[in-house]
Amino acid sequence: MARTIGVDIGGSKVLALLVEDGRVLDRADRVTPGRTTSPAVVEDVLVDAVTSLLPTEPSGIAGEGDVVGIGVGAAGLVDRDGRSVRFAPHLAWRDEPLADRLEHRLGLPVVLENDANAALWAEHRLGAAQAYDDVVLVALGTGIGGGLLLGGALVRGRNGMAGEFGHLQVVPGGRPCPCGRSGCWEQYCSGRALARFTAEAGVPHEGAELTAAANGGDPVALGAFAEVGRWLGTGVADLVAALDPEAVVIGGGVSAAGELLLAPAREAYVATLLAAGHRTIAPILAGALGPEAGALGAADLARRA
Amino acid sequence: MARTIGVDIGGSKVLALLVEDGRVLDRADRVTPGRTTSPAVVEDVLVDAVTSLLPTEPSGIAGEGDVVGIGVGAAGLVDRDGRSVRFAPHLAWRDEPLADRLEHRLGLPVVLENDANAALWAEHRLGAAQAYDDVVLVALGTGIGGGLLLGGALVRGRNGMAGEFGHLQVVPGGRPCPCGRSGCWEQYCSGRALARFTAEAGVPHEGAELTAAANGGDPVALGAFAEVGRWLGTGVADLVAALDPEAVVIGGGVSAAGELLLAPAREAYVATLLAAGHRTIAPILAGALGPEAGALGAADLARRA
Repeated sequence: MARTIGVDIGGSKVLALLVEDGRVLDRADRVTPGRTTSPAVVEDVLVDAVTSLLPTEPSGIAGEGDVVGIGVGAAGLVDRDGRSVRFAPHLAWRDEPLADRLEHRLGLPVVLENDANAALWAEHRLGAAQAYDDVVLVALGTGIGGGLLLGGALVRGRNGMAGEFGHLQVVPGGRPCPCGRSGCWEQYCSGRALARFTAEAGVPHEGAELTAAANGGDPVALGAFAEVGRWLGTGVADLVAALDPEAVVIGGGVSAAGELLLAPAREAYVATLLAAGHRTIAPILAGALGPEAGALGAADLARRA
Repeated sequence: MARTIGVDIGGSKVLALLVEDGRVLDRADRVTPGRTTSPAVVEDVLVDAVTSLLPTEPSGIAGEGDVVGIGVGAAGLVDRDGRSVRFAPHLAWRDEPLADRLEHRLGLPVVLENDANAALWAEHRLGAAQAYDDVVLVALGTGIGGGLLLGGALVRGRNGMAGEFGHLQVVPGGRPCPCGRSGCWEQYCSGRALARFTAEAGVPHEGAELTAAANGGDPVALGAFAEVGRWLGTGVADLVAALDPEAVVIGGGVSAAGELLLAPAREAYVATLLAAGHRTIAPILAGALGPEAGALGAADLARRA
């Protein structure tokens, strides 16, 4: 079986997985250099993570254990041909020809993909969406990433930017967004929105601590998940009205909260879905691959490239 | 060349076109029976319009002038297999097996399609979007119809309901919509929205009269187009962020107003488009086929079926 390495590079963490036939053989975790760091430093971290997973000496059997390619899922706008990162809000890359640069340094074929697209691909091939060919992915992290699979193929769009669902404007003149606009969905439905809700209530919680508080019955934490869950459900209803997929997968770090988030989301979704009585209602599914989805998807895309 | 008949059945009008190789050879116009009328009456009008375009006597040359199929674009939710109308807000059809019924009565193959999808198909094959394979259509009429073309193929969705962009929620708790929800885009961006804007200003205008008033410099009419145009532009910016198409086509009866509507729409679109500096900006194009787009597209879909 062909081995590949899949890398997920996000705003805070780099995860590299050595993968064979969908199974993880080895992993490397790194911290993403801050966004003021030069592109070269980020690239060095990436190369270091990948190199740590490459065999240090030949197996002795031709082809055995060889790594045949590298897939990189990046939190940013990736060209539709998978060669360059056009823009990455949390990284220093601007029109960075990353695939060529990594191929030169690593001596292996490299494909780039948007991180949410890579996660969607993994959920389709190995995870929650294996039974579906038309799938919307909503990845809840600090913000929202998104992906769209139609007819079993990723939809990349003219510029490779399809799936930026987090910047649908859901409140005219609403909360300012780092993208420069206002009222974007991710300002109401994300890890950042959860943290703001609890801070406004005078009880700052974040991440796993917030989930633990909600599971312990903390009313502020429960209220935060209920509010963000409602925004998730109404936004998914919009995406389903526009795209009529077979299923919607909720991924990203925040989705680890599970039913705390998905139960209010499903309630709002069914209550606001267009023509709910005249359609087969696409299920909202929790992603099955957790924080490894992006790297697993990137590894599989490298295998197929 | 194969002749087909394309029919566009909307909330107020039925248009049937006899088409050969994209050229209109003959046409029949009918009034749509009111929505309280039984499905059988609507079907009779449809059959009458089609029959009036069929040759009354054989040409004498085998195959010459024969009509080989009928395409019907309907203002409603059409099954993805093109056989039934699930639901039509302006017509009495509810899970109506229209294709089978028309085939039985007309003795010719029949395909059904959502009317906006049919219009998009026509603009792609014969009109404004011939140069593009990834296209979003926004059809502005009484409400909003929508269609999505990806890789040169219509996206129908699991239930045949993809492209219902008019019911994206753009204002939380906003204006009530006949769909039962509130704040839907078509409540702010449609012929109905134009009429409401002018009525609220105490100067009731509608349709061609409103366009004439705006072209004559009437400030209320100009203000109505500016406001509806802004909502059009911001909504298109959302669709482009989500789908990253090559082009967006504005069709439907209201689009006859041309630049009165499209100039403010383009201004709002460019001002609110995500990452406008990092992408090739998809142009907003006026549909080229006017009110015949739906019937022309249905005729072409029948030819290919």
